[in-house]
Amino acid sequence: MELKDVLAQVADGTLSVDDALNELKKDSYEDLSFAKIDHSREARIGFPEVIFGERKTPDQVAQIAVAIYQRSGLVLGTRADAEHYDAVKAVLPDAVFYENAKIITVGEPKEQIGNVAICTAGTTDIPVAEEAALTAWMCGAEVHRYYDVGVAGIHRLLDQVEDIRKANAIVTVAGMEGALASVIGGLVNAPIVACPTSVGYGANFGGLSALLAMLNSCAAGTAVVNIDNGFGAGFMAAKINRQTVKGRES
Amino acid sequence: MELKDVLAQVADGTLSVDDALNELKKDSYEDLSFAKIDHSREARIGFPEVIFGERKTPDQVAQIAVAIYQRSGLVLGTRADAEHYDAVKAVLPDAVFYENAKIITVGEPKEQIGNVAICTAGTTDIPVAEEAALTAWMCGAEVHRYYDVGVAGIHRLLDQVEDIRKANAIVTVAGMEGALASVIGGLVNAPIVACPTSVGYGANFGGLSALLAMLNSCAAGTAVVNIDNGFGAGFMAAKINRQTVKGRES
Amino acid sequence: MELKDVLAQVADGTLSVDDALNELKKDSYEDLSFAKIDHSREARIGFPEVIFGERKTPDQVAQIAVAIYQRSGLVLGTRADAEHYDAVKAVLPDAVFYENAKIITVGEPKEQIGNVAICTAGTTDIPVAEEAALTAWMCGAEVHRYYDVGVAGIHRLLDQVEDIRKANAIVTVAGMEGALASVIGGLVNAPIVACPTSVGYGANFGGLSALLAMLNSCAAGTAVVNIDNGFGAGFMAAKINRQTVKGRES
Amino acid sequence: MELKDVLAQVADGTLSVDDALNELKKDSYEDLSFAKIDHSREARIGFPEVIFGERKTPDQVAQIAVAIYQRSGLVLGTRADAEHYDAVKAVLPDAVFYENAKIITVGEPKEQIGNVAICTAGTTDIPVAEEAALTAWMCGAEVHRYYDVGVAGIHRLLDQVEDIRKANAIVTVAGMEGALASVIGGLVNAPIVACPTSVGYGANFGGLSALLAMLNSCAAGTAVVNIDNGFGAGFMAAKINRQTVKGRES
Amino acid sequence: MELKDVLAQVADGTLSVDDALNELKKDSYEDLSFAKIDHSREARIGFPEVIFGERKTPDQVAQIAVAIYQRSGLVLGTRADAEHYDAVKAVLPDAVFYENAKIITVGEPKEQIGNVAICTAGTTDIPVAEEAALTAWMCGAEVHRYYDVGVAGIHRLLDQVEDIRKANAIVTVAGMEGALASVIGGLVNAPIVACPTSVGYGANFGGLSALLAMLNSCAAGTAVVNIDNGFGAGFMAAKINRQTVKGRES
Amino acid sequence: MELKDVLAQVADGTLSVDDALNELKKDSYEDLSFAKIDHSREARIGFPEVIFGERKTPDQVAQIAVAIYQRSGLVLGTRADAEHYDAVKAVLPDAVFYENAKIITVGEPKEQIGNVAICTAGTTDIPVAEEAALTAWMCGAEVHRYYDVGVAGIHRLLDQVEDIRKANAIVTVAGMEGALASVIGGLVNAPIVACPTSVGYGANFGGLSALLAMLNSCAAGTAVVNIDNGFGAGFMAAKINRQTVKGRES
Amino acid sequence: MELKDVLAQVADGTLSVDDALNELKKDSYEDLSFAKIDHSREARIGFPEVIFGERKTPDQVAQIAVAIYQRSGLVLGTRADAEHYDAVKAVLPDAVFYENAKIITVGEPKEQIGNVAICTAGTTDIPVAEEAALTAWMCGAEVHRYYDVGVAGIHRLLDQVEDIRKANAIVTVAGMEGALASVIGGLVNAPIVACPTSVGYGANFGGLSALLAMLNSCAAGTAVVNIDNGFGAGFMAAKINRQTVKGRES
Amino acid sequence: MELKDVLAQVADGTLSVDDALNELKKDSYEDLSFAKIDHSREARIGFPEVIFGERKTPDQVAQIAVAIYQRSGLVLGTRADAEHYDAVKAVLPDAVFYENAKIITVGEPKEQIGNVAICTAGTTDIPVAEEAALTAWMCGAEVHRYYDVGVAGIHRLLDQVEDIRKANAIVTVAGMEGALASVIGGLVNAPIVACPTSVGYGANFGGLSALLAMLNSCAAGTAVVNIDNGFGAGFMAAKINRQTVKGRES
Repeated sequence: MELKDVLAQVADGTLSVDDALNELKKDSYEDLSFAKIDHSREARIGFPEVIFGERKTPDQVAQIAVAIYQRSGLVLGTRADAEHYDAVKAVLPDAVFYENAKIITVGEPKEQIGNVAICTAGTTDIPVAEEAALTAWMCGAEVHRYYDVGVAGIHRLLDQVEDIRKANAIVTVAGMEGALASVIGGLVNAPIVACPTSVGYGANFGGLSALLAMLNSCAAGTAVVNIDNGFGAGFMAAKINRQTVKGRES
Repeated sequence: MELKDVLAQVADGTLSVDDALNELKKDSYEDLSFAKIDHSREARIGFPEVIFGERKTPDQVAQIAVAIYQRSGLVLGTRADAEHYDAVKAVLPDAVFYENAKIITVGEPKEQIGNVAICTAGTTDIPVAEEAALTAWMCGAEVHRYYDVGVAGIHRLLDQVEDIRKANAIVTVAGMEGALASVIGGLVNAPIVACPTSVGYGANFGGLSALLAMLNSCAAGTAVVNIDNGFGAGFMAAKINRQTVKGRES
Repeated sequence: MELKDVLAQVADGTLSVDDALNELKKDSYEDLSFAKIDHSREARIGFPEVIFGERKTPDQVAQIAVAIYQRSGLVLGTRADAEHYDAVKAVLPDAVFYENAKIITVGEPKEQIGNVAICTAGTTDIPVAEEAALTAWMCGAEVHRYYDVGVAGIHRLLDQVEDIRKANAIVTVAGMEGALASVIGGLVNAPIVACPTSVGYGANFGGLSALLAMLNSCAAGTAVVNIDNGFGAGFMAAKINRQTVKGRES
Repeated sequence: MELKDVLAQVADGTLSVDDALNELKKDSYEDLSFAKIDHSREARIGFPEVIFGERKTPDQVAQIAVAIYQRSGLVLGTRADAEHYDAVKAVLPDAVFYENAKIITVGEPKEQIGNVAICTAGTTDIPVAEEAALTAWMCGAEVHRYYDVGVAGIHRLLDQVEDIRKANAIVTVAGMEGALASVIGGLVNAPIVACPTSVGYGANFGGLSALLAMLNSCAAGTAVVNIDNGFGAGFMAAKINRQTVKGRES
Repeated sequence: MELKDVLAQVADGTLSVDDALNELKKDSYEDLSFAKIDHSREARIGFPEVIFGERKTPDQVAQIAVAIYQRSGLVLGTRADAEHYDAVKAVLPDAVFYENAKIITVGEPKEQIGNVAICTAGTTDIPVAEEAALTAWMCGAEVHRYYDVGVAGIHRLLDQVEDIRKANAIVTVAGMEGALASVIGGLVNAPIVACPTSVGYGANFGGLSALLAMLNSCAAGTAVVNIDNGFGAGFMAAKINRQTVKGRES
Repeated sequence: MELKDVLAQVADGTLSVDDALNELKKDSYEDLSFAKIDHSREARIGFPEVIFGERKTPDQVAQIAVAIYQRSGLVLGTRADAEHYDAVKAVLPDAVFYENAKIITVGEPKEQIGNVAICTAGTTDIPVAEEAALTAWMCGAEVHRYYDVGVAGIHRLLDQVEDIRKANAIVTVAGMEGALASVIGGLVNAPIVACPTSVGYGANFGGLSALLAMLNSCAAGTAVVNIDNGFGAGFMAAKINRQTVKGRES
Repeated sequence: MELKDVLAQVADGTLSVDDALNELKKDSYEDLSFAKIDHSREARIGFPEVIFGERKTPDQVAQIAVAIYQRSGLVLGTRADAEHYDAVKAVLPDAVFYENAKIITVGEPKEQIGNVAICTAGTTDIPVAEEAALTAWMCGAEVHRYYDVGVAGIHRLLDQVEDIRKANAIVTVAGMEGALASVIGGLVNAPIVACPTSVGYGANFGGLSALLAMLNSCAAGTAVVNIDNGFGAGFMAAKINRQTVKGRES
Repeated sequence: MELKDVLAQVADGTLSVDDALNELKKDSYEDLSFAKIDHSREARIGFPEVIFGERKTPDQVAQIAVAIYQRSGLVLGTRADAEHYDAVKAVLPDAVFYENAKIITVGEPKEQIGNVAICTAGTTDIPVAEEAALTAWMCGAEVHRYYDVGVAGIHRLLDQVEDIRKANAIVTVAGMEGALASVIGGLVNAPIVACPTSVGYGANFGGLSALLAMLNSCAAGTAVVNIDNGFGAGFMAAKINRQTVKGRES
C-alpha cells in the first residue's frame, strides 16, 4: 500500500491510526539485543536472513536460527562449525550439517527449478563450490556440479560445455590464476558469477590473484563476488535462475 | 549439430567431408592480421564482439568496426575518443559518438525490452553510468536512469525505491565508499551489478576503496565488475534482463 | 512532527492528506537531472550541501551553486579551478576564489565563534591546511593557523603549544611521516582531527605513509580523515567547535 | 606558572632553585625500567595513561596498573586476557574483567554525563563496540548502544535514528563494506567517529575494505580510527561529549 | 590423426563412427567425481599430472595417485604431509617420502640426462630447492646442487661458477632480497629459472621482496616462478634441459 | 684458461706477467664515465650488452651504441624513442627504428634458427609482443607470430595450436586476466615464457592482475618475466630455442 | 648550559632574567609566515636547514634561501627546478644550479675531508646519485663516484672493490632489483647507506622492488633511505664520514 | 697481496703455484653441505658470520656454531629458540640464551668502546631493542638503553635528550606510527638507525606503518632497517660507533 493510500484511508476512517502505523512500519524486525532479526527481508529481497556463523557464539547462532525458523521454516547458516551445529541441533532437531561446506540447514526448499551450474577449476576449490551449490539449492534452484574442469586440461571442460550451456546462471569457482571464468565466459551465453578462492602458492596473496584475474576478465557477461564467498555466488546465481524461469513479479 | 551426428552423416554420405569440416569449424573468425574478428561470438554469447578502443589506433578501430558491421549490422565501441570516431565515421557514416561515455555506436537494436535500472551515487559517476546505460541499450534493454541518489542524502534514494524495484537488473555505480550498492541491495529484490568508480579523495586509490566495499557488501544478491567498467556492468545487466523477459532458449 | 502525530491529525481532520504528504516528504531535494540538490541537508547535518568540483563541468558547478545559494545564501565549493570560478562568478557575482586552497565561496558566515587550530608540519602542506581553514571558517568557526611546526625542529612547536591548547578542536596537517599528529596529541587535551597529505619522497605512496602513521598514532583522542581531505578535517573540527561553544540543541 | 615568572621568582628569592627545578619538571613520570609511567598525562590530555595489554607480560601489566592506580584511582587496561586479569586482580582486588571486550577496569568514573551513541553494523562487530563503550564510560560518558543496525536492513536503523540524533558524539563500528558510517553520517548532525573492524570474507583484507570505505565516506563530519581500535573511538567520542556538556576549561 | 583425415576415413568406411568418436576424444580423462585425472597430459605436455597435496584429503591424494600410477607408473606428489604419505603407501607400497621437500614419489625415472643446477642463497632456502631438485629428477634430469652460495659471501659463488656454467638450465632459489638470480644471471649463459622464497625478516612480506627483485632482475635470460614454487621451477628447468639434450620431436 | 693453468704457465715462463694479467682480467669493459660497457658480456651470456633507452639521453644512447657496435657489429636498443633514434642514426647510419616496439637495431643476426612462437591475447598487446619478437630475432631465432588469440574466443587459439606446438619456446603476451598463458600451457609441450602487459580496466593495477595470474598459473612449464618486459621474454625464449637447436657448447 | 646552572646563576645574580630567558630559548627560529626557519638546526644536528623545493613556489624558495644564507653562508636546495633557480639567483647571485641532480647551492663548504663512495648500478641511477654526491660534498665530505657497476657485469664492480673499500661510508644507488647494496655489503667493511631508485620495468612499482630488496639485504651493516632520496643518503653518509675522521665532539 | 705481486712472485719462483693458488683463494669457506661457513667474513666486513636461526634445525644451528667458534671464539645466533639453545649448549657449554631477545651468544667481546644508544617508543618494543642491544654489545660497543620514551609523553624523551646526545650512533625502535625516529632525529646530531617494529593495532599491517613513517622521516641523518630487524640495527650502529672511536684502518 502506497503512503498516499494509507493517509487517504486514515482520513476516511477506513484505517485506524494503529493499523496505519503497523502498515507503515511493516518492515519489522525482532530484537534479540545482540542481533535484530530482519523478518521483512524475505518479502524485500526474496529469501530470509542468512546466519553468517563466523565470530558468532554457538548460542547466538542457535537463538537467531530459532527466530528465523519460526517465521520462515527455512534456515541457512554459513561459515558454521561443529559447535554451532550442536547448538542449533539442540533446539531445531531437523538441522543438517554439511561439514565440507561449513553449512547448516533446517528445512528444505519447496521446489527445485531451472538450472544453476557450479564449476570448479580444481579439487581444492570444492568446499567453496559446495557453499555455493547448497545456497543455490536452498534458494530453490536445481543445481548441477562440474568439478575439476580447470584450463590446465581444457578438454575436460570442452567435453562438458554443451551441458553447461543449458544453465540459466553459472558459478565459476577457481583459485590460482582464475582463468576458468574467462574461458567459460567465452564459450557460453548465460550470466556468469565468478568466485575467486584462496587456493594456491605464494603470490596468490590469499586469493588476490584470482580476484584480480576475474575482475579483469576479457569475457563480458561476468561479475565477481568476494574471495571464497560461495554463499554470495550461489545466492546471486539463484536469483538470476529464478527470474529466468518465473520472470519478475511486480 | 553434435559431433556424433556429423560423423554419422558423413558415414552415410549425407554430408560431404568439406561440409563436415565447415560444420565443425563454424566457430569461425576473420583475420585482420592485427586482430582476429570473432564472428561466431554473437551466436555463442549473444552479442557481437565489442571494440575496446583504448590503445588501438583509429585505423584499427575503423577496420574492426567495418568487419563487425558487415556481419551483424550493429557496432559498439567503448573507450573511444574523437579520433577513433572520425576514422569510423569515414567508413560507416551512420556512426554516433557519445563523448561523455566515450562510446561509438553504429546501428540501433531492434527492440527495447524489460527494465534495467542504472543508479549513481553522485554526479561525477555519470560518465561510467552512461557507458553502462548505452551498453545495456545496445544489447536491447529498456534503460532507466537514477542519478545522484547517494547515501549522504538517503531520502533521495528512498524516494525512488519503488521505481527501482521494477527493474529486472540494477547497475549501481559509485566511487568513494561505494555504499550505494549495499543500501540498494538491502532494499530491492533484483540482482545487482555493482560498478566501482575511481572518483574520490586520496585514499580511494584509484577506485580500490569502492571496489573492496562492493566486494564486501553485506547485501547478498550483488556481484561486482571492474573499476570504471561501465561496459561490463551494462552487458551483465542486459543479459539478466533479457533472460528475465524471454527465458532461456535451449 | 512524529509519524503517529501526523496520522492522528489526519484522522481528526486537522491535517489534509496533501499537507500530511508534504510533511512526511519534507526531506526534499531539487532535481537538476545530473544532480539532486539536497536542500534538507542543512537542517539534518548543520550545513548546506558542499560542491565537490573535481570532474564536474563549470556549468554543472554553477547550476548547483545557484540552487544552493537560493536556499541558504551561503555556498562552499571545494577542489575548484579557475574555470569553475568563472562560471560561478558569472551567475553569482559575489563569488570569491581562493586559488591556493582551490575553494570558491559565496556569502560569509554570520558569526565566528570558538577556536579551531590548524597546524601544518611544513610549508608544502599549506594548500590542504587552507582548505581546512576556509571550510571551518565558512562553518562559523574562528580559525587560528600554526604553519611549519613539524617535528624536525620541535622547539618551533613547543613554543606555540600554550596557544594551541586554547583550541576546541585541532586539525593537524602533515605529509611524510605524519608524526605531527602524535606529538601534538601527546601535548594537548582537545580532540584532534589528523589530515595526512601526499607530500613526500618515493615511498610515501601518495600519502599512504602519513595516513598509516596517523591511524596508528599512539596518542589517544585523534581521528583521521582521508589523504589531502582538508575539507573533511575542517568540517569535523568546526562541528566539534560549535558543540563546545553552544552545546547540543535537541 | 610561565617560565618568565619562575625565573623572576628565583631572581627575587621567592622560589628556591630546587623548587624552581621541580616546577619546571612537573611533567613528571615514574620509571619502572621496562616502562615510564606518564603521571602528568591526566593533567595534559584529560585521562590517566591507559595500559595496552598486547605483548606485555601479566607482571608488567600488573605493575603498571598499580603505579597508575596509586596516582589516579582509576585503571583502564585494553587488549587484556585472562592471565593479565589474574595478575592485576592479585594486586588490585577490585579489578573487573570484561572478557568480550578484553578490558580490565579498576575503579569507576565519578560521573556519567552527556550522551555517546555506539552503533554496530552486525553482531560480530560487538566486541570492538564494547571496547569503545567501556572506554567512553570509563572516561565519564553516558553510553547508549545500538547494535546490529547495518544497512542490509536499513529500516532497523531508520527506526532508531531519532534516538541516535540525541547523542553528542557517535561511534559507528562496522566491518565488511563499512557503509554504516556514511549512512548515519547523512542522517545525523553530531560528529561521527568511525571504527572499521576486521570482520568479513576474503577481500576485506583484515579490515582494509571497511577502513578505506570510511576514509572515503561521502558524509562530511566523520573521522576514522584504526581497524578494531574501539579504545581510540570511545576515547575520542568521550572527549567530544565532555566538551559539549562542559565546554572547554582554559 | 588430423580432423580431415578422420572424416575422410569415416566417409570411405575405413573408420567406424565409434572409432572416429574415440579418436577425436582421445584427450581422455578419468572422472573420480572430486577430480578428473588428465591421462592425456603426458602426451600433451610431456609428464603425467602431478598431485598438489595442499588442502586435499589423504584419501583423495591416494585415489589420484593410484589412477595416475596405473597409467604411467610414475607418481609425483608435492606439498604432501605424513598423513598423505601414509594413505599413498597403503595402496602403493613403493612410495617414498621426502619430508624436507614435502614430496611423495612412486617409481623412478628411466634416465637421468643433461645437467640442471639448483642453487640456493642460504640454508633456509633448501626445502624449496629440494622440491625443485626432486621434481627435475623425476622429470629425467641429472641434478647438481649448489647450496648456500648467497651474495653476502660472493667468493663462495664465484668459486663454483665454472661448474654451474655446465648446466643446461639453472634454478636459483633465494629469499630476502633475491639478489642471487641477478648475480648468477650476469655470470652464466644458460637460461635461469628464478624461484623466490618466503624466507626473511618483516618487510619481505611473505616473499614479495624476493619476487619483485627477481622480476626486476637486470640480468636478461631470467624468468620467474611463484613464491616457494620449487615444483614449477624444477619442472621448467627439466623441460629446457631435455630439449637441450634431445632437441624437439615434432 | 683456468687459473691454475695461468699460474703454471707463468711459473714456467710460457706466459709473461703482463699477459697473465690480461688473461685474468679479460672480463674487460670500456668506461664512458656515465656507463661501463660490458664487452665480455657476449662471451659470458651469449649476446652483447643491450641498451635500455628509458631515462637515458639521446647522446648517451648513441655513445653506448657506437661502443657496442665497434666490438660486436650488432646493436639492440629497447625503450627507445625518435630522439634516441636520430642520435644513433647520426653516428650509425644503418640503424633501423621499429616505432611500435620502441626498438632500434643496427646490423642483422647471421642466422635465423629454430622456432620461437610469440602469442598475444589481444590487439593492444602487440607493441610488447613486437619487443619480444624483434629481440628474439636479433638473438638469431626464427620467429612466428600468433596475435589476438585470447581466450574470449578460444576457437581462434585452438585453430592454431598445431602450429604453435612446433615452437621450441613460446612467449605468451597478455594483459587483463592473463589467462592465455595457462590455456596454452595446458595444450603444448614447449617451455613457456609468460609476459604480462599493463593493458586493461581499473583494477588491473598497471599489469598486476596479469602478473599475478601468470605467476599462479596452474599449468607447469611456465615462467614469468616483468610486466611489459617484451625484451626479457624474447631473450629468454631465444636462449631456450638456441640450446634446443644447437645443444650446449661446454 | 644546563637548566640547573641557569637557575643557580639567576639566583646568585650572575645572569639576568632576560639573559636567562634567551639562554633557555636559544633554540630560536625565524618566522616567514609560510615557513619557520630553524636557525638552531646547525648547532643541533650539524648542518643548516635544507630547502626541499618540490611544491614550493620560486618566491618561497628564494626567501627561505636568503634567510638561511644570512645565518650560515651556505645554502643547499634539493628538488629544485629552473624557476626556483632563477628566483634564488636574483637574490643570491652566487647560486649554482646542478640540473641533473635538481640541486641549487650557494657557497662552498670550508673543507673536504674523509672519503664517501657513491656507487650506482646503472647509468639511469645517476641523477639520484648526484643528489647524494652533492649533498655529501656540501656537508664537507670528499666524494668518490663509482657509476654503472651493477651486478649484471659483476667484474666491473670487483675491479673497483679495492678503491671502494677505502671509503668511510658508502652510498649504493640502484633501481630494478637493488642487488648492488647486498653485493657491496658482502665485500666491504664500511657502513652502507642504500638508496633505492624508481628505475625499472613494470613491476618495480615506483621503486618498491629495490626498496624491499634493500630492506631485506642479507648483508649486515646496511641501512636504507627512501626511494630516490639521494639527499638523505648523502647526508647520512657525510655524518658517518665526519665522525670517522673527527670523532665526536661532546 | 695484490694479484700483480702474486704473479710476479710466481714468475721469479718466490711463490709456488700451490701457494699462489691458496693465496688467491684465501677468501675461504667451510662446506657443511647444508651451509658454507664464510670464514673470511670477519676480515672482510669486521665480524664473523652470524647465525640466523629461523627455519634452521637445532642440529644445523649447533654445527654452524661450532664451525664459527673454532675460528673466531665468538658466536652470535639470532632468532633462536630454546631448542636451538639446547643443541648449541650441548656442544658449546658456555652458550648463553637471552630468551626475550631470542639470542644465543658464546664468548664475550674483548672490549666495550664508545656509546651506542638504544631507544624504544614503548614497552612492547623491548624484545626487538634487546636484539639490537645485544648485537651491538657483541660487536664491541658500550650500550645505553632508553626504553619507553615514545612521543605520547614527550617530556620523558626531552628529559633524556642530553644523555642520548652523547651517543656515537642511535638506534630508535618503534612500532605504531614510528614518530620516535623523526623526533629524536630533530634533536640530536649522531647518525640514527631506525628500526620499525610490528607492534600495533589493525592498520599497522605488520609494521608497514612504522616502516613507511621512518622512510619518510623529515629528519635527515636517518636510515632504516627492516621491520623487527634488531640485529641489523645493532650491527649498523656498532659499525658507526667503532669507526667514530677508532677511525678507519686502511
